[in-house]
Amino acid sequence: MAVLKVHGNPISSATWRVLACLYEKELDFEFVMVDLRSGEHKKEPFLSLNPFGLVPAFEDGDLKLFESRAITQYIAHTYADKGTPLVIPGKEMATVSVWMEVEAQQYDPAALKLQFELAINPLLGIQTDAAVVEEYEHKLAKVLDVYEARLSQSKYLGGDCFTLADLHHLPTLNYLMPTQVRKIFDARPKVSAWVADISSRPAWCKVLEMIKPK
Amino acid sequence: MAVLKVHGNPISSATWRVLACLYEKELDFEFVMVDLRSGEHKKEPFLSLNPFGLVPAFEDGDLKLFESRAITQYIAHTYADKGTPLVIPGKEMATVSVWMEVEAQQYDPAALKLQFELAINPLLGIQTDAAVVEEYEHKLAKVLDVYEARLSQSKYLGGDCFTLADLHHLPTLNYLMPTQVRKIFDARPKVSAWVADISSRPAWCKVLEMIKPK
Repeated sequence: MAVLKVHGNPISSATWRVLACLYEKELDFEFVMVDLRSGEHKKEPFLSLNPFGLVPAFEDGDLKLFESRAITQYIAHTYADKGTPLVIPGKEMATVSVWMEVEAQQYDPAALKLQFELAINPLLGIQTDAAVVEEYEHKLAKVLDVYEARLSQSKYLGGDCFTLADLHHLPTLNYLMPTQVRKIFDARPKVSAWVADISSRPAWCKVLEMIKPK
Repeated sequence: MAVLKVHGNPISSATWRVLACLYEKELDFEFVMVDLRSGEHKKEPFLSLNPFGLVPAFEDGDLKLFESRAITQYIAHTYADKGTPLVIPGKEMATVSVWMEVEAQQYDPAALKLQFELAINPLLGIQTDAAVVEEYEHKLAKVLDVYEARLSQSKYLGGDCFTLADLHHLPTLNYLMPTQVRKIFDARPKVSAWVADISSRPAWCKVLEMIKPK
């Protein structure tokens, strides 16, 4: 097996998504630091890995991939027999795919906007826009109402097992939980239990340990 | 084989995505009209098909799905031996997945914003915001620069064959091509040829015929 390489940065939540997947699959990998401050991701040789100049990028031998959710799908399908099964064979995978799309299309646009307003902008000295926060809290709450109903029917979003549909949420949850947005999750018991469950997985704890400022 | 059912509306571009896939796969299906004007999509029984209250939704026997890109993936994988192969077996699928994520994460947010400003809002009597259009034209142009380079290496985004990675673009292209945004596509020869190619596929022409105001 070729050495798996993740090109990323510890502050990038999309990088965390790939790391969580690799730890769940119990795969060895090499982490290649990309210096975002010096703009390394906007120059060659990084642009040959991802022409959009965004971390993470991934290598498995000759295969070069980017877009965190495409990378996790590749890892989960290619290394299906290793570690946690993050995808489900057969027809049930269709339901996992639905909830992966829900994360990407419904949850993430609201969660990412709030992540920037409440967690990233303060670090950059940019003022938080209260009106934007209110608007996107409202959007996120409506999404989480659907999650609450879904998680009343099944333990995880894709079904009875933890899959990529859950894992893909971990990075934004990690940014949002220490902010005022936590109340929206806490107000929904099933959602709140799900967040506590998936956030305490050993693989995710390894990611948190790895990205901790040294 | 159970009757495949698409619940949607002819003005919904996400519905078109599923229709294009079904026509490419040469599958028979039943189209169930959802009356968006009366808010049928925000009430039961539609909410049991998609709790987010958005078209399209899809049924294949007992299996009920929503999110257009999850539906197309299900159809392409389940009916792999019918019509056009829209996915590629093995490792090459990873590259198709990357470009499907690029469509969803990089292209679509800009294209959809422009679709609303330049094609939907005028229909609703809402004034187009020139500053927003300028901002998102700039974003879309940067995405299309990457597409131009990609399409200089391979005929289609995912590789040498037409796949879901290309098909997923058709709905927004159809809204944008009659607008001022067309110039951004026309300025890039490979992108322009790709748009002409995928827009003239017989399956897409069947969608256009089906959604034409009668």
